[in-house]
Amino acid sequence: MEKNSVEEIVADVKLRLERAQFPIPAGVSNRHVHLTGENFKTLFGRNPEPSVLKHIGQPGQFACNETVAIETQKGSFKNVRMIGPCRSYTQVEISSGDAKILGIEPPIRDSGKIENSPGIKITGRKGSIVIPKGVIISKRHIHFSVSDAKKFKVLDGTEVRVRCGAGGERETVFEKTLCRVSKDYALEFHVDIEEANAAGLKNGDMVYIV
Amino acid sequence: MEKNSVEEIVADVKLRLERAQFPIPAGVSNRHVHLTGENFKTLFGRNPEPSVLKHIGQPGQFACNETVAIETQKGSFKNVRMIGPCRSYTQVEISSGDAKILGIEPPIRDSGKIENSPGIKITGRKGSIVIPKGVIISKRHIHFSVSDAKKFKVLDGTEVRVRCGAGGERETVFEKTLCRVSKDYALEFHVDIEEANAAGLKNGDMVYIV
Repeated sequence: MEKNSVEEIVADVKLRLERAQFPIPAGVSNRHVHLTGENFKTLFGRNPEPSVLKHIGQPGQFACNETVAIETQKGSFKNVRMIGPCRSYTQVEISSGDAKILGIEPPIRDSGKIENSPGIKITGRKGSIVIPKGVIISKRHIHFSVSDAKKFKVLDGTEVRVRCGAGGERETVFEKTLCRVSKDYALEFHVDIEEANAAGLKNGDMVYIV
Repeated sequence: MEKNSVEEIVADVKLRLERAQFPIPAGVSNRHVHLTGENFKTLFGRNPEPSVLKHIGQPGQFACNETVAIETQKGSFKNVRMIGPCRSYTQVEISSGDAKILGIEPPIRDSGKIENSPGIKITGRKGSIVIPKGVIISKRHIHFSVSDAKKFKVLDGTEVRVRCGAGGERETVFEKTLCRVSKDYALEFHVDIEEANAAGLKNGDMVYIV
């Protein structure tokens, strides 16, 4: 084996061991929508702002009291929670199982990347819209603050593997987990309900980069 | 490092590489029931035998034309497929997501191990039963024929890790996958729909022991 290869392997193992020291709390997402301010007004009338039901893991983000129905020709879901505040794009995040019931094939994407994704009808208390695109299955990812990214030695866009449910009956290693770094983020590993159930993972459980 | 440890590690790596040569087809299970002959008669009347809708991966096993409803105080599912032929025990296999809708907490178990599992009401075309136990979440597992078990060097009860969806967006390694060996089995990796969706896995996709 070349000396360079050995050095690379040793460096990789060292980096993994360093990262694996620090626990990361898991956040499990059920199907939900993000809305633009304009779409929000169409769906919920004159209310100036979405109202806070419960603050969630990411700073400033919250589950809203407002829920919507989402509907295709093949199926629908009621009581789909809006996550506030309003954003610059309208996006519907569903699971792979939901997609089957709705009869659509959304791409597995990083949030905000909605080009060439299916559309859907969204209905609120006061009105409906049909969005031409915006339905995705969220690619599993970890949010890092800038200081956490330094601690974990990851960059925005780095992909890592994450061990979940260590010691449990459904222990699972998720490959290709996307690292997202921003001053607006707090450390959290995001998966959807099917990924969480597959790994026996619950909201707030600790996971590890390995 | 002790000489013994090095030898053990080398043997382990060698075994893994040997096993990883051979693809294993995946079989994805939706919620389903197995029924005893007696329960079958109560649910479906005088029909002597469950009727074949479609043969499935394991020799002699088939999806039946017969479906049932399963119901708890909190929720229910209709059109739950029976898998035939009749068995010596009645068992309902559901996903973790199903369990939440039904408001029960079934154990994650190997098929047939139904002690201390929740019961449920089951309704067929001609009648209903309430089973006192029998609802489980299936522990992921691989079926091996005796000759496949030799090829893979596994015993009944061996636990292995399985790589799914290699190269895809949802590549996943499932730890603690149970090996089950019998002359009645054919080579197949069994997961439920949530596990399959988490790993981007479809019926018939190939997976690898790693």
